[in-house]
Amino acid sequence: FQLNPFWIELAYFITLSSLGFLSLKATNPRTVSSLLPKDIDLFFTSVSAATVSSMSTVEMEVFSNIQLVFLTFLMLFGGVVFTSMLGLHLTRAKMNRKGNIEPDSSDSSHDSNHHIDQPGMITNPETEEKSIEKEENQGFKLKSIKILSYLVLGYLVLVHALGSTLISIYLSLIPSAGKVLKRKGLNMQTFSIFTTVSTFSNCGFVPTNENMVIFKKNSGLLLILIPLILMGNTLYPVFLRLSIFFMEFMTKRAEFRYMLKNSRELGYGHLLPGVHSVYLMITVLGFIVVQLIVFCLLEWNSEATSGISGYEKVVGSLFQVVNSRHTGESVFDLSAISQAILVLFVVMMYLPPYTSFLPIQEAENVCEGVKSKRKNKDFWEHILFSQLTYLTIFIILICITERQQMKKDPLNFNVLNIVLEVISAYGNVGFTIGYSCERQIIPDGQCKDKLYGFAGKWSGEGKFVLIVVMFFGRLKNYNMRGGRAWRLL
Amino acid sequence: FQLNPFWIELAYFITLSSLGFLSLKATNPRTVSSLLPKDIDLFFTSVSAATVSSMSTVEMEVFSNIQLVFLTFLMLFGGVVFTSMLGLHLTRAKMNRKGNIEPDSSDSSHDSNHHIDQPGMITNPETEEKSIEKEENQGFKLKSIKILSYLVLGYLVLVHALGSTLISIYLSLIPSAGKVLKRKGLNMQTFSIFTTVSTFSNCGFVPTNENMVIFKKNSGLLLILIPLILMGNTLYPVFLRLSIFFMEFMTKRAEFRYMLKNSRELGYGHLLPGVHSVYLMITVLGFIVVQLIVFCLLEWNSEATSGISGYEKVVGSLFQVVNSRHTGESVFDLSAISQAILVLFVVMMYLPPYTSFLPIQEAENVCEGVKSKRKNKDFWEHILFSQLTYLTIFIILICITERQQMKKDPLNFNVLNIVLEVISAYGNVGFTIGYSCERQIIPDGQCKDKLYGFAGKWSGEGKFVLIVVMFFGRLKNYNMRGGRAWRLL
Ligand SMILES: [K+]
Ligand SMILES: [K+]
Repeated sequence: FQLNPFWIELAYFITLSSLGFLSLKATNPRTVSSLLPKDIDLFFTSVSAATVSSMSTVEMEVFSNIQLVFLTFLMLFGGVVFTSMLGLHLTRAKMNRKGNIEPDSSDSSHDSNHHIDQPGMITNPETEEKSIEKEENQGFKLKSIKILSYLVLGYLVLVHALGSTLISIYLSLIPSAGKVLKRKGLNMQTFSIFTTVSTFSNCGFVPTNENMVIFKKNSGLLLILIPLILMGNTLYPVFLRLSIFFMEFMTKRAEFRYMLKNSRELGYGHLLPGVHSVYLMITVLGFIVVQLIVFCLLEWNSEATSGISGYEKVVGSLFQVVNSRHTGESVFDLSAISQAILVLFVVMMYLPPYTSFLPIQEAENVCEGVKSKRKNKDFWEHILFSQLTYLTIFIILICITERQQMKKDPLNFNVLNIVLEVISAYGNVGFTIGYSCERQIIPDGQCKDKLYGFAGKWSGEGKFVLIVVMFFGRLKNYNMRGGRAWRLL
Repeated sequence: FQLNPFWIELAYFITLSSLGFLSLKATNPRTVSSLLPKDIDLFFTSVSAATVSSMSTVEMEVFSNIQLVFLTFLMLFGGVVFTSMLGLHLTRAKMNRKGNIEPDSSDSSHDSNHHIDQPGMITNPETEEKSIEKEENQGFKLKSIKILSYLVLGYLVLVHALGSTLISIYLSLIPSAGKVLKRKGLNMQTFSIFTTVSTFSNCGFVPTNENMVIFKKNSGLLLILIPLILMGNTLYPVFLRLSIFFMEFMTKRAEFRYMLKNSRELGYGHLLPGVHSVYLMITVLGFIVVQLIVFCLLEWNSEATSGISGYEKVVGSLFQVVNSRHTGESVFDLSAISQAILVLFVVMMYLPPYTSFLPIQEAENVCEGVKSKRKNKDFWEHILFSQLTYLTIFIILICITERQQMKKDPLNFNVLNIVLEVISAYGNVGFTIGYSCERQIIPDGQCKDKLYGFAGKWSGEGKFVLIVVMFFGRLKNYNMRGGRAWRLL
């Protein structure tokens, strides 16, 4: 009996979110009982943490210290690096069980959680020789996978320890940052660990209502977080490869050399071949530079970045554009930023983390990879819609569920804001325009500005659609090749 | 010396647009001299007609009878069917010149104007036998192409004659429609021919300011136009194939049989193989049905469709959704339509005309086609961005050129309206939200509602970007495979 890995992973995230919901429900928030968050909002928050999205429909300071701890665990267990490590352990367990008998390639590509497509991974055992060789290699491969899984664990522990220590030191040394926590009654230890886990897993929740806006003058803190963001997501394959290099250099073990040379055969989607890692790094840095230039050109003298020094503006802008790919922490109010940049952010949020520019030969391999994979797949996988089609359907659904508000309150409920919210949930980013009473055209006397996301003002159905989008986004790798049977001509 | 067909086609459209501009400039409009359209608007209109976009920055009733005739020629010469016929003649001339000596496949795929990708067309002459057979076939192929080009000419003439006759008869018989023309001082003959050419070429200009809104109760007229729209664009391959069937049945000539069997080898991109034609038809009708259902569900009792009977609503809705793919004539005011449908329309406008759903085997051929083609192309073609990336860049540019207005007048200048305008220009559709003085938040005393597109209120730079987008959209087939070297992972 073979469970489809998609269902395993979906079950994992639903279980995680449900456990999160129950523990948030069972414990008391900081607010008075009359302002208790609704069940749907608690579930939304739990899903948002587990899928590392950081979309919010509740202000963060509502949560008590113990609830923040629960959220920390959700973010830790939901993060990409952590789940990929679980995947490695599963692969190992499965290979052990099979006892090297079946080197079933079509299956190994499907094992575990790391479902980034690996073209060229499936080598048909055309010649007998190769197949014998392969079986001999199997034991060595198993050992390499074991070592790799420990390496990933070490990477995780080390980065988290380093990150939270640095943040703690910064908070103790810089009074302006420390005072913020004191004023808000936040535990410094909780804050450091929460923020480290949130940043490394690229979730983007921060225990303060204002997210990072309140720290926009604390450039040092931002500079600690930027490498954490990159190490935990877009540049993870690069840092992983560097770690293996380092370990190989230190220990001279053959397994590390094997990992470096046969990156794809290990079946760990985050370990990319050397050339590919270089292209990935260039692409990631390229996107950051382009965004930074556009951001500085359009926002240098704008309202959004006013009140801080030139140096703080540069660091803040850098922090903001590094966050647009996946993390979604903010130092500037997005609703004050020019729409041209919002459109750019929508594109950046849409791009999957390992988007990279590859020269022609590689691109051809991709095509071959598609073909060889295709044979093993069933009909339904081919008539799946593409990502963009699903996203459009979700956006249209939200436009329908929120149609009353779109008529009454067109400046808050406009299509750009909805698109940004949906793509933000799909990309598991967490950027939001928010909701502002000032933008209401027919002012509603009872309106109070709240520091949660735009989705917080949506109807229950709208929030439910967004929960689905967050799950869909977290599991998007399974649909990456969807819509291939549609031909745009 | 071999000119790249992209440059030939670009030169064709720029020449056509420039000639159009000069003739519009040289003749007098109907308005008094103080309201003469600016040069950029005349050029915009000319480009819009030549690229069959029907984007407008001038009210249509400004143009005098002779100017409408000029526009008719622009639309006729710019239409897809007409340019593809020119392409067939060019192919024939080139094959004649070469005298069947070089059956150069890499070249023949590049000939002429019909640059829709034809995977599987390039058959490598692997075996000697095949290559000899091919040369024998060459003469027959040449003859078939000749006959095909006459067939296309006949199709063009017949459909135009039939269309304008039917419209003339309708206008003479139905007083309500005839009166509109009289009131507006439009020549009935000009109106019939202009509308037929505009509809068949899928341009979508109508000599009235209100486009087809003024005829929303004339369901008969709409029912005449709907088949014209389909025959001239999305279903042209189906009707072309049916015509060949019919001719084969009538004349029993071998050339027609050859065309039916070797559709792709003729190198005429609009002649698709039988199975593909069937899938195309299913896809086109499927899109229409889905749109019609959504439109009727959301708009049955809305403001936009008020004041007409149920039957007129159904026909009007059908007309509106058939127009969303390419033609862009409107019977309902788009600014009154719910935003969910606008998002759906944006998707429909974006889809290239021959988008179709293909079963798996065909999809694999596509992949093979890509690979065999790839070898002949140069580096630059691979690092071209994808269509969506270019469109995003254009949208961001417009957000920058119109940033002042976006702040002052956010209900008119919002991102959805800009996206709709840009995608409309890219798809050569012509839908627009327009501009409404009522939607101004800070009312501007001098504002007067005009019946031209939203782009009419843009700055000169914005209009210029949109002109570029229209050319880009008309020539989009050359970039269809752009961005392949980018890997979204
Ligand atoms: K995030
Ligand atoms: K059009």
